[in-house]
Amino acid sequence: MSGTLYAIGVGPGEPELLTLKAVRIIREVPCLCVPKGKEEGTSLALDIVSKVLSLEGKEIVEAYFPMKKTKSSEHYETLDTRWNTTVEEIVTRLKRGIDIAFLTIGDPTIYSTFFYLHDRLLELNPQQRIIIVPGVSSINACASRIATSLGLADEKIAIIPATYIEELKDILITFDTVVLMKVHKVIDKIISILKELDLLKKSIYVAKVGMEDEAVYYDITKIRDKDLNYFSIMIVKK
Amino acid sequence: MSGTLYAIGVGPGEPELLTLKAVRIIREVPCLCVPKGKEEGTSLALDIVSKVLSLEGKEIVEAYFPMKKTKSSEHYETLDTRWNTTVEEIVTRLKRGIDIAFLTIGDPTIYSTFFYLHDRLLELNPQQRIIIVPGVSSINACASRIATSLGLADEKIAIIPATYIEELKDILITFDTVVLMKVHKVIDKIISILKELDLLKKSIYVAKVGMEDEAVYYDITKIRDKDLNYFSIMIVKK
Repeated sequence: MSGTLYAIGVGPGEPELLTLKAVRIIREVPCLCVPKGKEEGTSLALDIVSKVLSLEGKEIVEAYFPMKKTKSSEHYETLDTRWNTTVEEIVTRLKRGIDIAFLTIGDPTIYSTFFYLHDRLLELNPQQRIIIVPGVSSINACASRIATSLGLADEKIAIIPATYIEELKDILITFDTVVLMKVHKVIDKIISILKELDLLKKSIYVAKVGMEDEAVYYDITKIRDKDLNYFSIMIVKK
Repeated sequence: MSGTLYAIGVGPGEPELLTLKAVRIIREVPCLCVPKGKEEGTSLALDIVSKVLSLEGKEIVEAYFPMKKTKSSEHYETLDTRWNTTVEEIVTRLKRGIDIAFLTIGDPTIYSTFFYLHDRLLELNPQQRIIIVPGVSSINACASRIATSLGLADEKIAIIPATYIEELKDILITFDTVVLMKVHKVIDKIISILKELDLLKKSIYVAKVGMEDEAVYYDITKIRDKDLNYFSIMIVKK
């Protein structure tokens, strides 16, 4: 009997935002697989979980994925090799009947690298049992934090990585709420577009929601360099 | 000392998807306010919570809001009156120092009527302490259920109520993932647009995710009438 792979959303960072289901499954499985970005050093997901329950006696498989994506083929090759190693480590255990929980920040269906793993595992074994446990997404946590509804009644919501600078203006015109991910690299361009559309005052920036060093900017022209990071979201609500 | 109002996302329906924070706060407060739609008879949010913890001894304030929205001014008048009654009931208790938790299905920032309450309360008392606790959104739960990533890498996600039939085609062309809410009233028109764009096979319909009578349709042309309801979501993933 092959083991089950669980993909578990552990929420945005605040340990109490773990679901009962996440806690139960993490407690039950003997092995956790945790992604780890270069920037952090330790796994943020593991850190969140360890504040709620004891991980003593569990095997921890760490998967290293550099988070800063460049377009160089070299980088993709590195990532590819790392995915292969991780898949191998997971498959070896599943074959021995060991259940594994792959932990992911926020929700597994919102920009989580888990789906790369998902597709590779199913390619290797289409019968592999995979259970995805949704979590509180960082986007929803940000909106709650700043007491802003993402959508009400017939409003339209767009969630886009801020790489689409060219399309951004049209999307800001068409949608009632625009959630911008990965703004840290293009913040100046975004500020200039928002200014042009007179939306600066409708934009709020949240860095590291629910974490100890969370920061909220109601005036986005004042964002400090140290808060320009991967774990940040901008919400433009018209 | 005025009481605190908590807005709590109780998740999409599966009781285990409640967060630790939601459970703790619901346990601590003496009073719960629950929205109740005509269609259900009982409060779905209360039903979810009662499967996880005892509500004995708590005061339950029910707020009746018909969920079927028509455009008639009469309907809006009714809603308005009901909101005023609910706000009054809540304010009376807050003034006496009683903490209240307003329960909402899914996440409070995703199409939850809570924000009507939020704005009215702050109009009456700008100093009112309101804490919003995010929950697992039904959208994320649907995506997890059908093992589909809503967005990966640089993909763009649109979440729209299906009332925007005219704009739907453009949005389907521009975005990688389109989440359609409230499709039950316009399902035929949607199917015809998806057919035209050759997206029928990329569309999945989920009714009542995580509830006992959940239904998933991988062939959306076969959706049965009984599953065309308010608690249903279509995900189009290109």
